[in-house]
Amino acid sequence: MIRAKIAQAVGILNELDIDAWMTFVRESWGLHDPCIDLVVGGNVTWQSAFIITRRGERIAILGSLDKAAHEILGHYDQIIPYVKGIGEPLRETLARLDPRRIAINFSVDDELADGLSYGMYLLLQNTLRGTPYAERLVSSEGIVSRLRSRKLEPELARITHACAETVDVFAQLHKRLKAGMTEKEIAAVMVEIMESKGLERAWEADQCPAVYTGPESAGAHAGPTDRRMEPGHLMNVDFGVRYEGFCSDLQRTWYCLRPGEKDPPAIVMKGFDAVRDAVRKAAAFLRPGVKGHEVDAVARGHIVAQGFEEYPHALGHQIGRFAHDGAGLLCPVWERYGEKPFAVVEEGQCYTLEPRVPVPGHGVATVEEVVVVTKDGCRFLSEPQTEILLVRGHMKRG
Amino acid sequence: MIRAKIAQAVGILNELDIDAWMTFVRESWGLHDPCIDLVVGGNVTWQSAFIITRRGERIAILGSLDKAAHEILGHYDQIIPYVKGIGEPLRETLARLDPRRIAINFSVDDELADGLSYGMYLLLQNTLRGTPYAERLVSSEGIVSRLRSRKLEPELARITHACAETVDVFAQLHKRLKAGMTEKEIAAVMVEIMESKGLERAWEADQCPAVYTGPESAGAHAGPTDRRMEPGHLMNVDFGVRYEGFCSDLQRTWYCLRPGEKDPPAIVMKGFDAVRDAVRKAAAFLRPGVKGHEVDAVARGHIVAQGFEEYPHALGHQIGRFAHDGAGLLCPVWERYGEKPFAVVEEGQCYTLEPRVPVPGHGVATVEEVVVVTKDGCRFLSEPQTEILLVRGHMKRG
Repeated sequence: MIRAKIAQAVGILNELDIDAWMTFVRESWGLHDPCIDLVVGGNVTWQSAFIITRRGERIAILGSLDKAAHEILGHYDQIIPYVKGIGEPLRETLARLDPRRIAINFSVDDELADGLSYGMYLLLQNTLRGTPYAERLVSSEGIVSRLRSRKLEPELARITHACAETVDVFAQLHKRLKAGMTEKEIAAVMVEIMESKGLERAWEADQCPAVYTGPESAGAHAGPTDRRMEPGHLMNVDFGVRYEGFCSDLQRTWYCLRPGEKDPPAIVMKGFDAVRDAVRKAAAFLRPGVKGHEVDAVARGHIVAQGFEEYPHALGHQIGRFAHDGAGLLCPVWERYGEKPFAVVEEGQCYTLEPRVPVPGHGVATVEEVVVVTKDGCRFLSEPQTEILLVRGHMKRG
Repeated sequence: MIRAKIAQAVGILNELDIDAWMTFVRESWGLHDPCIDLVVGGNVTWQSAFIITRRGERIAILGSLDKAAHEILGHYDQIIPYVKGIGEPLRETLARLDPRRIAINFSVDDELADGLSYGMYLLLQNTLRGTPYAERLVSSEGIVSRLRSRKLEPELARITHACAETVDVFAQLHKRLKAGMTEKEIAAVMVEIMESKGLERAWEADQCPAVYTGPESAGAHAGPTDRRMEPGHLMNVDFGVRYEGFCSDLQRTWYCLRPGEKDPPAIVMKGFDAVRDAVRKAAAFLRPGVKGHEVDAVARGHIVAQGFEEYPHALGHQIGRFAHDGAGLLCPVWERYGEKPFAVVEEGQCYTLEPRVPVPGHGVATVEEVVVVTKDGCRFLSEPQTEILLVRGHMKRG
């Protein structure tokens, strides 16, 4: 996979007219530039430069004790070890390649292309002082975002598999839900099912799964609590698994029926339908060439037109090696999103669609689906939630 | 522990005459500033500022959906959520505090104090443009290195426990070693013992444990291979475990006796003794007030005086929440170490001591111990290796 992604990167360098892409890192076990997993495949201790050129050269300059591990990996054909300092071999290598533009690993807008720390940037500037190359550094964000978001067939297959497993976790969970269970108990059931499948979580344990029940819940971005799912509650879960390095990220909503109720109250149905239809409309609109904020506006507009408050976040993010993966975002034009809303949708990208609606007195209705952008539209990677799920029975205690 | 470290940080801010320390991060699940585990305790999705002042204020400015999780954690008493952008609440907060110096999370020399990405630095500069605060930013490396290296009693207790468990792994391994085992088989035995103790590795699985046997081995920083430990080999392991978030990092050396041999050859003994005595001499020299390069020179000088080649790395690093933890390093004055060799040793710091000697025809002799700096010297956290370990029997195959 790493060699296939490096080959893809060489194509992108030519497409963008960039001579060399340099990923500059140190102690990568700690602050781990995600590009290492994309095009390097192993960590380093000392300051290291991994250079890919538009002619296809793969050059690694690294501390001598890191040499053997990278030779065994075999992804870089020129490995230049140093003992005392990276300055000399780096300057020599750049002088030999003489790139007109050198893309390095920083980005204001894309955190997955921003693995260069400010301290390392200062060190690089210091190292290149007096050479023409200090002035030729540009952001590698365009390379990284294309490389992350243009899924190769084996990448897409893994994401699809992760989604299918997650949908199955929801189906198994559904059979075991009873009113009175706490958010923590619901989360524990999901983890048990996930572990029985031999899968890992897609993000950090404290919020994967996230479970929110009732009108007093945090609603998003907090861990499960001892709050109980009571009759009359909307309960939603946000969960993803990692399968062979690739993630799913899906949300589902249940309503917990009150004694005597056969269906949820009208306001709950209206809230759920607003969310479901916002997903449908956004998916119908999503295609290569549109901008992220245009897609967000379709869903956001529908929810506001239904009389609900707009969601305080993006409609969706790209997904891949991380649950939040890749630069383009389906988001409104808000300061915190920088240039992301203006990124143009491309074929082969995978996005989540995840609007939400708080329903007063009941909780939050939310659905999250994953789609892949096709030649002229998009396709759901797993069966979307079209009806609100219902919890009927009450858990017996004591 | 987080509240205790925040309290320690307030003391350090006063000691260094810095008004405010701001850790500026985003999507911290991915590129994870290690200071989050030190003084924050939970992750964030959007651009966030965690500010600790010399008066003891704890202010978190973060995306609205991250608010609940940080309220539950409860480490910050002022939580300021935003929806559209961090700019306004950040500028307002700084205007209210009006700090003369704001320490932020970058460092040229200390990767554990360098969690601010270059993209985030540019974003911060942009956010503070036109305010006096853009000019008042300084590196927080002095705060972070003091905070990491001045171990609190519960921190030291956990490191000590991790070292004791590691020494026990070596003792159990010793009973099971036979000539003919491969590096991978030796590593598997160690992992089995570690897992039976319910412990995790201190660093990445592919090199923890690291096992090197014989004169052709990589010797350092590579994973175990199918190379067999043959009679006449020096075999060394580098291993650490994590106990309640704190690490050990120790190395031991064995010699595999040849048929008829009762002791290792003289050159092997000389190599091992050079390493052991280099550790002893460095430990005898190490005390508050000396500089890292002075300690390194004691060990390096002994090894060179014994006629062996000098080790191509530092004598030792600090250890704590990571196997490589904290700025000060016991290292020579080489370009790649930047300012680290000049850091002054302080009471309460924990260092490894790990010289090595390649013995021609046999392999690498190396010992690594962990010491804590005391008021007037240092103390080993576990029993040091004083004699070379011997492998006598040969594994029977097929």
